[in-house]
Formats: sequence, C-alpha cells, structure tokens
Amino acid sequence: MNSTSSPLTSDHQAILINGKAHAATLRHRIREDVLAFHDRHGVTPGLAVILVGNDPASEVYVRNKAIQTHHAGMRSFMHMLPETTSETELLDLIERLNNDAAIHGILVQLPLPAGIDARRVTNAIQPEKDVDGLGEVNAGRLAMNLPGIVPCTPLGCLLLLRDQLGDMKGQHAVVIGCSNLVGKPLAMLLLAEGCTVSIAHIHTRDTAALARQADILVVATGCRELVRGDWIKPGATIIDVGITRAQTPDGKTRLVGDVAFDEAVQVAGRITPVPGGVGPMTIACLLENTLTAARMQVGETPS
Amino acid sequence: MNSTSSPLTSDHQAILINGKAHAATLRHRIREDVLAFHDRHGVTPGLAVILVGNDPASEVYVRNKAIQTHHAGMRSFMHMLPETTSETELLDLIERLNNDAAIHGILVQLPLPAGIDARRVTNAIQPEKDVDGLGEVNAGRLAMNLPGIVPCTPLGCLLLLRDQLGDMKGQHAVVIGCSNLVGKPLAMLLLAEGCTVSIAHIHTRDTAALARQADILVVATGCRELVRGDWIKPGATIIDVGITRAQTPDGKTRLVGDVAFDEAVQVAGRITPVPGGVGPMTIACLLENTLTAARMQVGETPS
Ligand SMILES: NC(=O)c1ccc[n+]([C@@H]2O[C@H](COP(=O)([O-])OP(=O)(O)OC[C@H]3O[C@@H](n4cnc5c(N)ncnc54)[C@H](OP(=O)(O)O)[C@@H]3O)[C@@H](O)[C@H]2O)c1
Ligand SMILES: NC(=O)c1ccc[n+]([C@@H]2O[C@H](COP(=O)([O-])OP(=O)(O)OC[C@H]3O[C@@H](n4cnc5c(N)ncnc54)[C@H](OP(=O)(O)O)[C@@H]3O)[C@@H](O)[C@H]2O)c1
Repeated sequence: MNSTSSPLTSDHQAILINGKAHAATLRHRIREDVLAFHDRHGVTPGLAVILVGNDPASEVYVRNKAIQTHHAGMRSFMHMLPETTSETELLDLIERLNNDAAIHGILVQLPLPAGIDARRVTNAIQPEKDVDGLGEVNAGRLAMNLPGIVPCTPLGCLLLLRDQLGDMKGQHAVVIGCSNLVGKPLAMLLLAEGCTVSIAHIHTRDTAALARQADILVVATGCRELVRGDWIKPGATIIDVGITRAQTPDGKTRLVGDVAFDEAVQVAGRITPVPGGVGPMTIACLLENTLTAARMQVGETPS
Repeated sequence: MNSTSSPLTSDHQAILINGKAHAATLRHRIREDVLAFHDRHGVTPGLAVILVGNDPASEVYVRNKAIQTHHAGMRSFMHMLPETTSETELLDLIERLNNDAAIHGILVQLPLPAGIDARRVTNAIQPEKDVDGLGEVNAGRLAMNLPGIVPCTPLGCLLLLRDQLGDMKGQHAVVIGCSNLVGKPLAMLLLAEGCTVSIAHIHTRDTAALARQADILVVATGCRELVRGDWIKPGATIIDVGITRAQTPDGKTRLVGDVAFDEAVQVAGRITPVPGGVGPMTIACLLENTLTAARMQVGETPS
C-alpha cells in the first residue's frame, strides 16, 4: 500500500508547494512557446478580455491579466464597457471577436451586471476561443476526457499535482467542494489522471472520514480552515484552493485558506500555502489556455 | 447515521427492484404525457433513428426502439443506410433532420462502420434533438447541472433510485466503472441529487473497501460478478448495470450482471436483477428524452 501511511515524527514538516515559483517557471516556458509558435506560424496569440461595469476588484484582475498576457509575448486586447451595456451589445461584441482572426482567446470577466445572462454570454464564445473553459462545450469535452480547454484554477491545481507527484494512477483523490468553477472540473481531471475520485460537499455526512482516506486532498469550499490536522492522512498531498480574507488581532486582514495550515503542515506530505499556492497558477494557466486556443485554431493538436 | 447498517439475519432477502414493471409504468405515463402535449401544442413528438450497415444486433435494437416509440403515441422514422454510406452523407442527413420541424429527436445507432467518426456524427446532432444525450453540449450541461438531455441508461438508473429511495441527499454513492456512456454521467446525476459520490475504475486499488462504504452502489463495468457479497454494506441499494452473456452447464447461455446476485441478495437492502433491472429502463428513457426534446423545442421548460 502507500508508504506514506506510517506515523510521522512530531517535528515533521510538510514540503511546501511553491505555486508562485511554479507559476513563474510556467510563464517563462509559455513565453518561449509563444515565440516558437510565432516562428512556426507567423501568428502571435491574442487574448481579448471584456469587462462590463466598474467593479474595482474586477478592474484589478482584468488589468493583471492584460499585463501578464503582454509579458508572455502575446497580444492583449481590453474591452471595458459601461455598466449600461445590454446583453445584445455584449453578444454582438463576442460575435465580432469570434470572427476576428487576430483574437485566439476571449474572456468575459465575471460577475456581470444584473440583467445580463452570464450563461448565455459564456456559451456565445466559440469553444476554441473559450479560454476560461466555462462554456458548455468545453465542460462536455472535459467530462468525456476529450481535448478541449480546461478552467484555469483546476488546471493550475493539476499542474502542481503533476509536478509534485508525477503519475497519480490509482491514488485516492478526495475533492471537497463541487462548484462548476473548481471542484467538479478538477474531479474530472483527476479521474482522467487515473485517480479514484471522491467528491464531498455541503451535504456530505462525514467529510472528515472521507478526507482521511485521501492520498490527494483538494479543498475548494470557501469555508475558512474547514480541514483540520486530524482530517489528513499522514503523508497526503494537500491542495488548498480556498481564499478568505480574515481579520487579524491587530486590525489588519490576511488571506486564509480552507485548511488549518499550522495543523496540516505537521501531518501532510506536501501542501500548498495560502497565499502563494494555487492562486498564482490561475493567471499563468489563462496564458497557457490562450496558447492552447491559438494552437487549436491553426490546427495543431493541443499538448 | 444509517439505520440500515445493523447486521442482517441469515434469511435476509433484499427487495428486488423490478425494472420491467417500472419501465412499463413509465411508458404508460409517457403515452399520457404525449397525448396531453398534443392537446396543448397540436404537435406529435417525432423520433428519427438512423442505422448504418447491417449489424444484426443493431437491427434488433433499432426495431425495438421504433416499435416502442410508436406504442407511446409518437411518430417514429427509421433511416436504414447501407454499410457504404460516407460520413458526409450521414452528416447531410443529420443536417436535414436538424432542420425538420416534425423531428424532435435524432438517434444514431452505435457502433458506426469504420471510417465514420462517431464523435463528429454525434456532435452534429442539434443538442435539443440529441435524445441519446451523448453530444458534448449535453455532457457539459449535465456536468454543470443545467437543464439538458441525459443519456438513457444513467437516467434509467436515476429514476429507479428516486422511486426506491426518494431524497438521496447525503447518501454515499459509489459508482464502479466510469465510461462516458454510463458511469460518469450517472456520477454527475447522483452529485446533483446531493449524494457524496466516489468513482472507482480499473486503477482503483481497493474497490471492495470503497464499495463497502456505499449506501448506493452502482456497478457498470462489464466485469461479470465483480462485486461479491462481502463488498456490500448491509442494507445498501445496488444498481447492477452490467450485462454479460455466460455459458450455463447445459450448454445454453444466460445473462449475468456485474454483481454476484445470489450473494448480494443476502446483504443488500434493495437490488436490481439482471435481466429485468436496469435493462428495460433504457428504451423507456429514450421515449422520455424524446418527449423532453419536443418540450424544449416548443419552449416548455423540461420537468
Ligand atoms: N485563483 C484561486 O486561487 C481561486 C479561484 C477560484 C476560487 N477560489 C477560492 O476557492 C474557494 C471555492 O471557490 P468556488 O468558486 O468553488 O466556490 P463555490 O461556488 O461557493 O463552491 C463551494 C463548494 O464548496 C462546498 N462547501 C461549502 N461549504 C462546505 C463545507 N463546510 N463542507 C463541505 N463542502 C462545502 C459547496 O457545496 P454545495 O455545492 O453543496 O453548496 C460548493 O460545492 C473560494 O474560497 C474561492 O475564493 C480561488
Ligand atoms: N441497457 C443496459 O442495461 C446497458 C446499457 C449500457 C451498458 N450496459 C452494460 O454495462 C456494462 C458497462 O458498460 P459501459 O458501456 O460503461 O462499458 P465500458 O465502456 O467498457 O466501461 C467499463 C468501465 O468499467 C471499468 N472497469 C472495468 N473492469 C473493472 C474492474 N474489474 N474494476 C473496476 N472497474 C472496472 C472501466 O475502467 P477503465 O475506464 O479504467 O478501463 C470502465 O470505466 C456492460 O456490461 C454493458 O453491457 C448495459
């Protein structure tokens, strides 16, 4: 069975999975791949990001995405539309971008203002340009283990796990949280890797007992420090997707994850910190998806 | 916890889940719904079934589907094409049927002859007419728990489970086998019901130990009598999807499932027999899907 099941000494410390460093390496590799892609095809991948309204947090995200796209050697197009934009206007813009050969990826920053049907908008993006992987066609391709575009955060988790563990065949992966954005797509990815996959959520009766069986434990609930040290099988690999802003005693705020880190680090084999774990991988994976989209559009089979 | 976990007496016999009777009831209800639908809209649902080539087993399946469609008060259209049919010809036919207002459901009998890309053909069917639910869009809708058309066999299993158990929220469902046709869509359906879901397959290390945790155990492997009596938690509900043809000592053949029935019946709370369990539900669910497709096409929200 698993050699990591033996009890750990009291001064055990899990290996920290450095998402920030991994994301930097990934972005560097993407930049080189973008140059090589340009050499092969004379085409520079282009990403269009659409923001509707003036949500300050969304403005920061969108700007970061644009800058990192540019740093990766790709073209970045920003479309910042007023709060008053109608669904029809937005769909018209997407249609134009679908038909624009310079645009390989289209991302609509969520949430959208009330009155715009986010599902209809997301599905209007041509599947080969749907770099967030949130449209129905890409969700179907993922569910059927066919080539497609995978949502960025689950892809980031998968890349970290592959880097840490290599072949995951036969490992028991327990995913706590099953949103369409994170938990479910990640469960599908882990199944495709050959893991046995268990999916827990708010209705799960004994989440701790299930978690204790996990060789790979992924937590994506938004429920601060849900997973305690005694939920973890000694030596397990922990991916903490959760991000919550918590008040510190001195009145400042800090980011905390879905795992009680100080406890978990004494039991787990490997663990992602919050911040600096999964978070930095998300934008890097958006760049990766834009390159994948460009490859699909010139007829290369995605790697 | 679960009241069914107590040890059972040695003469315990599981309740048999009578799929044949349930399918008959379902077909009867569909027939009434078809009449009511006609009263509301002046429209009779129509199902087109396409068979390419002369596989005798496929001919039997297709004929049964046509007859049952007819019995349910719907229109049935058969398209039997020669082995020599090209992919282009088949795609042209699908395109015509997509645009034919008298056709609400389109089913292409699989397998297709070599040289025809089954995936491309399946995806060519308009999602609202894809009554097998095997196209990418319907797989995506299912994965994201959005209204769509669900593959017939998993839907049949779900209907049996709902009938037996009612609310399944919080129950631990273990699905052994994760094909795109049965295991994976059923796992998605059970997740949408609020079950905790574990998915096992050929790489799973200790399938028996996982199975023993199941309140609901679904087996769809094609691996004859894989699940033994001691894999089953006392009182669990067992859905046996597998069908294998086995030789009997007297030289005849009989159908056997993926569960060792004689052992399981002494431990389980409820169990589907093979034959007469899941099997009869599949065609009934095709009729249900055809009605659902017709409803979607006239703008009714699917139930
Ligand atoms: N770049 C990044 O690092 C990144 C990206 C995306 C998200 N996140 C973070 O990841 C977390 C999850 O995001 P999300 O979009 O998936 O959230 P979400 O849509 O709210 O989904 C949360 C999921 O967790 C389940 N859940 C909630 N509380 C639970 C509990 N106590 N026990 C078991 N399951 C529980 C919910 O179950 P039900 O469905 O049954 O209610 C749901 O499936 C959030 O903290 C978010 O900020 C981070
Ligand atoms: N109307 C009906 O009643 C109906 C309809 C459809 C199918 N069926 C029957 O249901 C069975 C499954 O059909 P399918 O189309 O899903 O078959 P399939 O495509 O062959 O898939 C079988 C699945 O079972 C897994 N598996 C095989 N042997 C296993 C083992 N020893 N332990 C654990 N997992 C194992 C496979 O794992 P890997 O993916 O890792 O190889 C695969 O995921 C067949 O007997 C079929 O005839 C009945």
